[in-house]
Amino acid sequence: MASPHRSWQEISASMVEHLNSTIDKIQPPVPACPQTLPNNVIGLAGALLAEKVVTITEMPVEVLLPKLASSDLTSTEVTTAFLQRAGLASRMINCATEMLPDRALVRAKYLDDYLAEHKKPIGPMHGLPISVKEHIGMKGLDLNAGFVSWVGRIAEDDALILKLLWNAGCVFYVRTTEPQALMHLETSNNLYGVTVNPYNRALTSGGSSGGEGALIGSRGSCLGIGTDIGGSIRSPAANNGVFGLRPTSHRLPVSGWSATMLGSEHIIPVIGPLSTSLEGIKLFAKTLIDQKPWLYEPVCVSLPWKDTSSGTLLRIAASGQRKLRIGVLADDGVVKPHPPIIRGIKSVLSRLKDHSDIEVVDFPPYKPEEAWRIISSLYFADGAEEEKAAINASGEPMLPLTDFIITDNPNVKALTIPELWILTQDREAYKAAFTQHWNSTSTSLPGPNDSKLVKANAMSQQDLMVDVILTPAGPGCAPPLNCSRYWNYTSQWNLLDYPCLIFPTGLQAGHEDAADKDYVPRNAQDKYNHELYKPETYIDAPISLQLVGRRYEEEKLIEALEFITDVAELPLSR
Amino acid sequence: MASPHRSWQEISASMVEHLNSTIDKIQPPVPACPQTLPNNVIGLAGALLAEKVVTITEMPVEVLLPKLASSDLTSTEVTTAFLQRAGLASRMINCATEMLPDRALVRAKYLDDYLAEHKKPIGPMHGLPISVKEHIGMKGLDLNAGFVSWVGRIAEDDALILKLLWNAGCVFYVRTTEPQALMHLETSNNLYGVTVNPYNRALTSGGSSGGEGALIGSRGSCLGIGTDIGGSIRSPAANNGVFGLRPTSHRLPVSGWSATMLGSEHIIPVIGPLSTSLEGIKLFAKTLIDQKPWLYEPVCVSLPWKDTSSGTLLRIAASGQRKLRIGVLADDGVVKPHPPIIRGIKSVLSRLKDHSDIEVVDFPPYKPEEAWRIISSLYFADGAEEEKAAINASGEPMLPLTDFIITDNPNVKALTIPELWILTQDREAYKAAFTQHWNSTSTSLPGPNDSKLVKANAMSQQDLMVDVILTPAGPGCAPPLNCSRYWNYTSQWNLLDYPCLIFPTGLQAGHEDAADKDYVPRNAQDKYNHELYKPETYIDAPISLQLVGRRYEEEKLIEALEFITDVAELPLSR
Repeated sequence: MASPHRSWQEISASMVEHLNSTIDKIQPPVPACPQTLPNNVIGLAGALLAEKVVTITEMPVEVLLPKLASSDLTSTEVTTAFLQRAGLASRMINCATEMLPDRALVRAKYLDDYLAEHKKPIGPMHGLPISVKEHIGMKGLDLNAGFVSWVGRIAEDDALILKLLWNAGCVFYVRTTEPQALMHLETSNNLYGVTVNPYNRALTSGGSSGGEGALIGSRGSCLGIGTDIGGSIRSPAANNGVFGLRPTSHRLPVSGWSATMLGSEHIIPVIGPLSTSLEGIKLFAKTLIDQKPWLYEPVCVSLPWKDTSSGTLLRIAASGQRKLRIGVLADDGVVKPHPPIIRGIKSVLSRLKDHSDIEVVDFPPYKPEEAWRIISSLYFADGAEEEKAAINASGEPMLPLTDFIITDNPNVKALTIPELWILTQDREAYKAAFTQHWNSTSTSLPGPNDSKLVKANAMSQQDLMVDVILTPAGPGCAPPLNCSRYWNYTSQWNLLDYPCLIFPTGLQAGHEDAADKDYVPRNAQDKYNHELYKPETYIDAPISLQLVGRRYEEEKLIEALEFITDVAELPLSR
Repeated sequence: MASPHRSWQEISASMVEHLNSTIDKIQPPVPACPQTLPNNVIGLAGALLAEKVVTITEMPVEVLLPKLASSDLTSTEVTTAFLQRAGLASRMINCATEMLPDRALVRAKYLDDYLAEHKKPIGPMHGLPISVKEHIGMKGLDLNAGFVSWVGRIAEDDALILKLLWNAGCVFYVRTTEPQALMHLETSNNLYGVTVNPYNRALTSGGSSGGEGALIGSRGSCLGIGTDIGGSIRSPAANNGVFGLRPTSHRLPVSGWSATMLGSEHIIPVIGPLSTSLEGIKLFAKTLIDQKPWLYEPVCVSLPWKDTSSGTLLRIAASGQRKLRIGVLADDGVVKPHPPIIRGIKSVLSRLKDHSDIEVVDFPPYKPEEAWRIISSLYFADGAEEEKAAINASGEPMLPLTDFIITDNPNVKALTIPELWILTQDREAYKAAFTQHWNSTSTSLPGPNDSKLVKANAMSQQDLMVDVILTPAGPGCAPPLNCSRYWNYTSQWNLLDYPCLIFPTGLQAGHEDAADKDYVPRNAQDKYNHELYKPETYIDAPISLQLVGRRYEEEKLIEALEFITDVAELPLSR
């Protein structure tokens, strides 16, 4: 328990000490890092860890699970390997809050014994180690959500999502970092400092699930749990070149997490997976939804996971009945993405555009400034009083990106209930207008007083509409620290509550992505982003993109990405 | 347009005059009422209207639709018949705000011509006249939501639900009454006065969709649209002996209605059907959902209407795999239902209990006072300032039941955002606890730290749980005016967002339902309700009951009621 007599610096030091002690517990011992680390530490694990550890930890979920289920690998072996690699990653990029070697290995042994005794796996994720963002409660462990003053809050129970994953056979072995207030698209707080990018330590891991992103990007985990209210799963997935899913709200259960603004439902935060593979994302979502979370968290929608094993979307496309329609929103018109992102989109499109079952169309942006006005007003409807109180309680300083989103954000004010209701109406009006924008390939619906009756046929209308939107995950690859200041490429989809998938293109930023010296910025935000870009700053940063679907269409979105990665020969796992 | 110089009495008089003028337009003329009306006017239409009008208007939706689709009846004939009977009902029980003979007959003729030309119906509800509660916007018509000061607000467009029903082939021919502020379980306002019960004019029609309930109860409509945030579809359906569905939120589209508190999403108001038949309810919901309302109102859940044509639930029951499990919540423990309601439940149960495919179990109440504290605090999060302003703007008096729910309700206060968030958390905690209560027949879910791992199997767990809850629709049959002061039998399900079906038992209150002279009331509310009951007060009042399901299980709920009505030999249409 945090003592009121300890300074925030003392509390921070004790938390770092605890982290280090949990890394030190790992057996065999986690290798020491080189005194001088290169900016890109992706290759270091291969040199420092045993070959078998490297082999195991570079397997994606879909390779690991059959081996675990058949005793080809024991959970103890796999857990030990991931403990090693995560411990090393933590030392290099500062992505963990604590390692859990004791409880993880007890659990792994239990599962190994279970398999030996029953000759069958305990569940669909038997023996799989999974990483977990810190603010998702684990019974008996600290639950500080990145606030120094919250250190000492101990979770009384496991979060529902952990119970369901436990039932499926998972092992929890590492908890990961998050930023102050959970509201940066980066990851730094006054407890653990800064989580950096394994591809380039001068760049941010992204955030707020930046510990997950950096850990999974460096193969210290193959599957982890993040959370997202403005890009917090997607920014770190993109920055670290892994897959990430922001699901529609209320498909996956969130009960048992810790955060400010509990009870706020003006913009719904969600929970979702980051993984080294698309199949990992899919298995995560399906495993949870198959357990009917709505029986325990009533706000969840009782929508079963839709079976796409017969290739619903692909089969229809292949049979020539219809094409996969991809809308491309390459530039939101406010902040132009950096050259590597533009290269990423062009590269993918060049491989998609001639496929007979794919149709690529332009998807124009729709009022991004209005989307930001609404969402950034609704994030902190109490004027961010709860965040300020949680920060001030320990005397920890407010970090630059906390200032950016709270102090310097003109939309943050303590709303009255009538003001809240007006903004909620604005939100729904924006959503309705955007939906109409998406529908706009089809005839609009006639009303009783339309002089001419045009029969609407929603089914055939929808067949004419864009299926998914291909768009950047941000205005650039992972930027230097404290520079993630334009949220719209992710936050707009939170406002709309659309499911989004981040995927790596397999490309990385480099010297070939020359800055456009003649570019005339459109506005201050565009100028800031434009001036941020120098090719040498972004060396090795993964180029990732985002695919966006309609609400509750996670299955279709995944299936579309499977098709796209197949056609464009993109990596299905990294 | 309402003039600021007119008194509320003058505005009211002009609205009543307008109503009467629209009834007077109906051809052939609506018969005059007898000078002295009996309390029970149900039989009067048979005596006053032409036989064919009576025959047509007593057909349920499922009988009318095939006749309309095959030209056995024209839409003009059917619309004319319903205009007649609704006009007469309006004169007897004051259930309409205006008749729409002109536009309805133009529409009916269009549909008749369409069918003649195309030899097929325009949609699944071809030619069917439907009644609509006033606050659901119709382009070009007044939209006052029961406030005198709002008279003169003209709907700029049709509500989305009307557009979809129009596409399906409906005719809109009458608009129906609602109470002041839309927040009574009765129907009276300062524009039109009191809507009374056709079975006993000394009793209330219920509310807030009391115009619909009374109109459909007297066969002036076979299908109508109501709205519900605390019982407003179910109270009038029950009081008038017809079917009513309160669906789960966001299954049916609400865009385009008028009310106070737009933008409030703390307790979600819903829209739904009232009908003389269960099949009418089902066709209404299916017809709307088949048109994918989520493509126009993004908050709607993209959950297709589940096909139960193969009798999913019944087949499973019949095959002996499992029974239909009915939980009986006959008394919420706070306010004991009146003797007719108890008789109704006993009567139904006596016919269900020995059926081999039905299992009847006790369903204990769960903290109804807590449910009421939360919901009645969240209804008016602005302290009802919007309602008070709308009432005060015209100088109209606040009616007794408005005082009851606003002025005299200790939970009504203007909340701050943090207070709102605490109540929202209370709401979700109550919902989670109630869900656990419902699940309690099955093993609880183990967590990672449970010493012994009990594998959860949600599928088989759910098979052991109660399918539906059978419960009263209120603490009595329709009471005398201004006495509907206990909401929990309906409002608890709004808080939980469960779908609910009201159905008539075919029984009516009478002298045989003796009061319990020795009863000792449990509390003030129970005392009030107990003292309200005298058999002679409630003569002829329909005895209705309520069936409650899990969120998004409208289809299963309807199927269960089909099974129950079949086994218990209850009327499927009234």
